Amino acid sequence: MSALHAIKLRYLSQEDLLSTGCLDPIMAIEAADSVLRAYQGGRIMFPEKIVQIFDESTQERINCLPATLLDEKICGVKWVSVFPPNVAEGLQNLTAVFVLSEIEHGFPVAVLEGTLCSNLRVGVMGALAAKHLAPKDSRVIGFIGSGEQAKMHLLSMRAVRPSLELCRVSAKTEAEEEQFAEEMALLCPDMQFEVAGCRSEVAIKDADILVTATSAQAPLLKADWVKPGSFYSHIGGWEDEFEVAKRSDKIVCDDWETVKHRTQTLSRMYKAGELKDSDIHADLVDIVTGAKPGRESDEERIYFNAVGLAYVDVAIALAMFRRASERGAGIELDLQKSMIFEHPQIAEWYGNAGS
Amino acid sequence: MSALHAIKLRYLSQEDLLSTGCLDPIMAIEAADSVLRAYQGGRIMFPEKIVQIFDESTQERINCLPATLLDEKICGVKWVSVFPPNVAEGLQNLTAVFVLSEIEHGFPVAVLEGTLCSNLRVGVMGALAAKHLAPKDSRVIGFIGSGEQAKMHLLSMRAVRPSLELCRVSAKTEAEEEQFAEEMALLCPDMQFEVAGCRSEVAIKDADILVTATSAQAPLLKADWVKPGSFYSHIGGWEDEFEVAKRSDKIVCDDWETVKHRTQTLSRMYKAGELKDSDIHADLVDIVTGAKPGRESDEERIYFNAVGLAYVDVAIALAMFRRASERGAGIELDLQKSMIFEHPQIAEWYGNAGS
Repeated sequence: MSALHAIKLRYLSQEDLLSTGCLDPIMAIEAADSVLRAYQGGRIMFPEKIVQIFDESTQERINCLPATLLDEKICGVKWVSVFPPNVAEGLQNLTAVFVLSEIEHGFPVAVLEGTLCSNLRVGVMGALAAKHLAPKDSRVIGFIGSGEQAKMHLLSMRAVRPSLELCRVSAKTEAEEEQFAEEMALLCPDMQFEVAGCRSEVAIKDADILVTATSAQAPLLKADWVKPGSFYSHIGGWEDEFEVAKRSDKIVCDDWETVKHRTQTLSRMYKAGELKDSDIHADLVDIVTGAKPGRESDEERIYFNAVGLAYVDVAIALAMFRRASERGAGIELDLQKSMIFEHPQIAEWYGNAGS
Repeated sequence: MSALHAIKLRYLSQEDLLSTGCLDPIMAIEAADSVLRAYQGGRIMFPEKIVQIFDESTQERINCLPATLLDEKICGVKWVSVFPPNVAEGLQNLTAVFVLSEIEHGFPVAVLEGTLCSNLRVGVMGALAAKHLAPKDSRVIGFIGSGEQAKMHLLSMRAVRPSLELCRVSAKTEAEEEQFAEEMALLCPDMQFEVAGCRSEVAIKDADILVTATSAQAPLLKADWVKPGSFYSHIGGWEDEFEVAKRSDKIVCDDWETVKHRTQTLSRMYKAGELKDSDIHADLVDIVTGAKPGRESDEERIYFNAVGLAYVDVAIALAMFRRASERGAGIELDLQKSMIFEHPQIAEWYGNAGS
């Protein structure tokens, strides 16, 4: 049996990633910043994703999103299910796995749990935008929505705005708000938490940074509540009245050409003729590279919306794989010990087929 | 920590699959037969594959091919690299991995080595065609090419034509022919093997079933060698002169609409205006279901060409996963033990991020 033909890969569970410090917004923001620049430099292959929808009414689906980081010599795929009816059963909506392969010989190098990466990526893109667009001395952050994406957003925003002192949260139930505050207080002991008693306005008014992370399809966020000088990260679907975007001084997207064909508030406005291409200030990469200005005054209201770019997910997954591996986490698995017909037992195994 | 939110999956290496009898052409032929019918019945989702080519000159690439088996409630993806320059380094050209997810909640259930499945599938499609199209009492099988795909074809053909007694093989070198004969004699002790001394004609003349499994891009196979009443399985690219197809009484494809847009011999003939849609007798599924006749006389020459249908790969991978699991192979891996923020150690782990 020729060791020449052995192929091994590393498997990393969510706990392997978490226990080796991969819930690290700073590492992920650096990976996101770097890969956005690489994409602009033509060093990323990013084909159209494949969507398989199993139920049109519930939108249960599995998406397949590959991307290649040419400079890293890594090609990866995010395999992610979105099953909205899971939530009513107390189960998670989104579940992801990544496979990473090297592109010297095309061999797989890692399989890793991907829900952590996928959810962190959402927060990280908001935080990367906030780094350039939120008030420098942001003190108050307000949330509509209290799920995993809200939590990831809070951790990520703290990484770029350590000045944050107070977090207000509103959710569908007070129990959810309390749970958010209790869990997050443990992770952010230097912050103060206030629950809003299901009143969105209480969570949002006075917020320097506001985040809507909800699956509600209704204009919960009112423009009157958004104070001058604030930064808004929209991460749901349609949860803000059109007036919020209209009163914003700048609108920034991760990728406007993609955003405009989806179903978020900005997409709806575009389709309704209430938003034009020229109303969009920039894509995030142009802010990151300085090609377009970020915040220019203390009074600007700035609106950020991301649809998700899977090459960013792959870049963050790669950073997690490297850190977790360096720190000895996960297990090394044989993909194959040799080529099929080189196995000394192959005749016996083939003979076993029917038994 | 809530066990409700634990997600586990099974990992199966090539050796896990081989040692539990998954190198089983009969099992795979049944899976292929069944999934072809399911596809025709509208019970398969089969989106367009994603191809990422890293080098246009060498065609090094990774393809991403998902499919859903609705009746089995399984959505899977074949993640497969094809790196032709590997061969000169003594490494395998093709390397594959499968991820299978259930579509009740969208959770992954298995990650399995996929080169075995992918290579077996090629042989199995040839054998499923041969079952309906090869001479009933086939005695002699001849090969041009002696690699893994040739070996898989031999094992698969034996499953549908146990009357095969003699195998002749030609390759680029006599050493390759000898290796093929030695290895296959162990797996097929009831068969006789003859090496052709690199003379394709010797391997092919008198063959009831002939197989070309070579990466050569030249018309190695001559029409004059193909005897009346034979069945030809073409599994390379362009390795037979156009006259072979022209003198065939029936041409059958796995999927002609796909074949005609590729680069195989039939595709070249189609593009050159030397083959019309009406020259194609049937797609394989129509032969399998009896919608179109298979072999109708002892004198017919029948030509079969397959490009590969990834939903067949997913169906065979599922059959392998089920058998190997039932037989206790592989390891059960935690994808996650709970949802991210439910982990009792989450604050500590988050604190470790920078360290």
